[in-house]
Amino acid sequence: MRAVIQKSLGGPEVLEVAELEKPRLLSGEVLVRVYASGVNPVDVAVRAGYFPLLGEPPFGVGWDISGVVEEVGPGARYEVGDEVYGMPFFPRAATGYAEYVATPSRQVARKPKSLSHIEAAGLPLAGLTAWQGLVDRAHVGPGDRVLVHRAAGGVGHLAVQIAKARGAYVIALASAAKHDFVRGLGADEVIDYRTTDYTEVLSDLDVVFDSNADGERSLRVLKPGGVLVSIMEHMNPEREAQVKAAGRRFAGVSVEPDYAALEAIAELVDSGKLRPHIAEALPLESVGKAHEIVGSGETVGKVVLTVHN
Amino acid sequence: MRAVIQKSLGGPEVLEVAELEKPRLLSGEVLVRVYASGVNPVDVAVRAGYFPLLGEPPFGVGWDISGVVEEVGPGARYEVGDEVYGMPFFPRAATGYAEYVATPSRQVARKPKSLSHIEAAGLPLAGLTAWQGLVDRAHVGPGDRVLVHRAAGGVGHLAVQIAKARGAYVIALASAAKHDFVRGLGADEVIDYRTTDYTEVLSDLDVVFDSNADGERSLRVLKPGGVLVSIMEHMNPEREAQVKAAGRRFAGVSVEPDYAALEAIAELVDSGKLRPHIAEALPLESVGKAHEIVGSGETVGKVVLTVHN
Repeated sequence: MRAVIQKSLGGPEVLEVAELEKPRLLSGEVLVRVYASGVNPVDVAVRAGYFPLLGEPPFGVGWDISGVVEEVGPGARYEVGDEVYGMPFFPRAATGYAEYVATPSRQVARKPKSLSHIEAAGLPLAGLTAWQGLVDRAHVGPGDRVLVHRAAGGVGHLAVQIAKARGAYVIALASAAKHDFVRGLGADEVIDYRTTDYTEVLSDLDVVFDSNADGERSLRVLKPGGVLVSIMEHMNPEREAQVKAAGRRFAGVSVEPDYAALEAIAELVDSGKLRPHIAEALPLESVGKAHEIVGSGETVGKVVLTVHN
Repeated sequence: MRAVIQKSLGGPEVLEVAELEKPRLLSGEVLVRVYASGVNPVDVAVRAGYFPLLGEPPFGVGWDISGVVEEVGPGARYEVGDEVYGMPFFPRAATGYAEYVATPSRQVARKPKSLSHIEAAGLPLAGLTAWQGLVDRAHVGPGDRVLVHRAAGGVGHLAVQIAKARGAYVIALASAAKHDFVRGLGADEVIDYRTTDYTEVLSDLDVVFDSNADGERSLRVLKPGGVLVSIMEHMNPEREAQVKAAGRRFAGVSVEPDYAALEAIAELVDSGKLRPHIAEALPLESVGKAHEIVGSGETVGKVVLTVHN
């Protein structure tokens, strides 16, 4: 099968499409014929060596997949032909940019029926990050005032919709060109962070969803007891100490495989409350270009690789 | 910390209590101070080399734990002091018979409030096996006629209660001395397998929960379209083919970590519908004796090791 690997750390040029053996199943695993693989900023960081989750190369690349169960291993759930999506093995082995992925059956869930594989492949890692932060950790509920950083980004545009679906009042940060998009997601207020210092106009918020490593300033707009959901600074003990000393809660989020949350996310999607926005879908062979786009940090929504058709 | 390891395959005498380093946390993990560790037949099979999940020794032993979160790694859920239970890493690394266990935070769930740690430590692997078989795979519902093999055993006594809680009519197999116990679990009928051939008195069942490798005979009592939930024969392709050829469904179960099912199980427990029966609780140092008892196959309910007090 075709699969993307890298033999060294570096720029997009280290990514190569190799011919590998189809993976063999262990007990409890299913083999997924992958139709689309999502590209995430963490893939770019790992590739370049900024986030050494996987040790030294060679290793595979990517986690997000959407596809069809082709084989059911001994004792696994699902049937041949079931459509599933997920981010198996994160943050361990990266096997996602590939024609076939073997996954523990409870690291994937049924794909939302109303989405194509391309759309569904954009959901797992970003959607779980938003869900585990807003729902599991911050317990966002009706009437909560929630600020979302980078609200047009891969994680942010899902965070806005999930917070809205939970009944929150959502304030979104985005540059002016993306305001229409962010309003369309349901944001109640949109602030252009380039022209307005949000710390001067906001205060007393219940939750800040910080996917921008902007914890110090985010802290200033939280009410006492408010929650800083921190994605990029989740391993920063100084930030955590600072937040706690200020009488706010620190909720660092390291996303985990979670079929139950994927099922809840699929329900939100199929009830019309959540939709991933796909900025671009490129064939597997254009993986280098896909990494360039995601690496730019300017993407609206998600970039996805198409694998099978 | 004290932890049980084995340096060779063999009888209970290969188990030794060693002094190991306290595990260090990765992102998304919590450190659990273990109060009790459940002993399962699979631990005995792995120890003896009958079920080579873990490769060659040396390796740790056990998966089931109940304890208290002592440290929260970067980005993990839960707070210091939360009581949790689960079977982290099954069927990979076995780290459960130990004073401290590091686990991905979503491989454990909140402990049922109404149980002691000793009781809760008897639930994860056996309870998830019953749940994933009866609920996820067989979709047992009101009025279904369900046969449970070894109904007084570690898995069976939980399967009886879970099937009852789902509204099923439960027929239980057990030797006469255990009939009162099994009726107390809610079984509607109890058959002494030593004096009665169940294939002569039963037919047309919706589900057989076979934790006794008795698939060939179980198949005879299923109605067309009925489900054989098979625990011990889940890797037997001949059994699977035979069941399918007969127009019945084969649901092999290889248990997987599953915090969502553990949460559902905890709800059943706290609403009074499910209770693990602890046959014996022994100190960690008596691990060899605990393995002897579980290895006998005659236990009513579960055997548990006490670790911290």
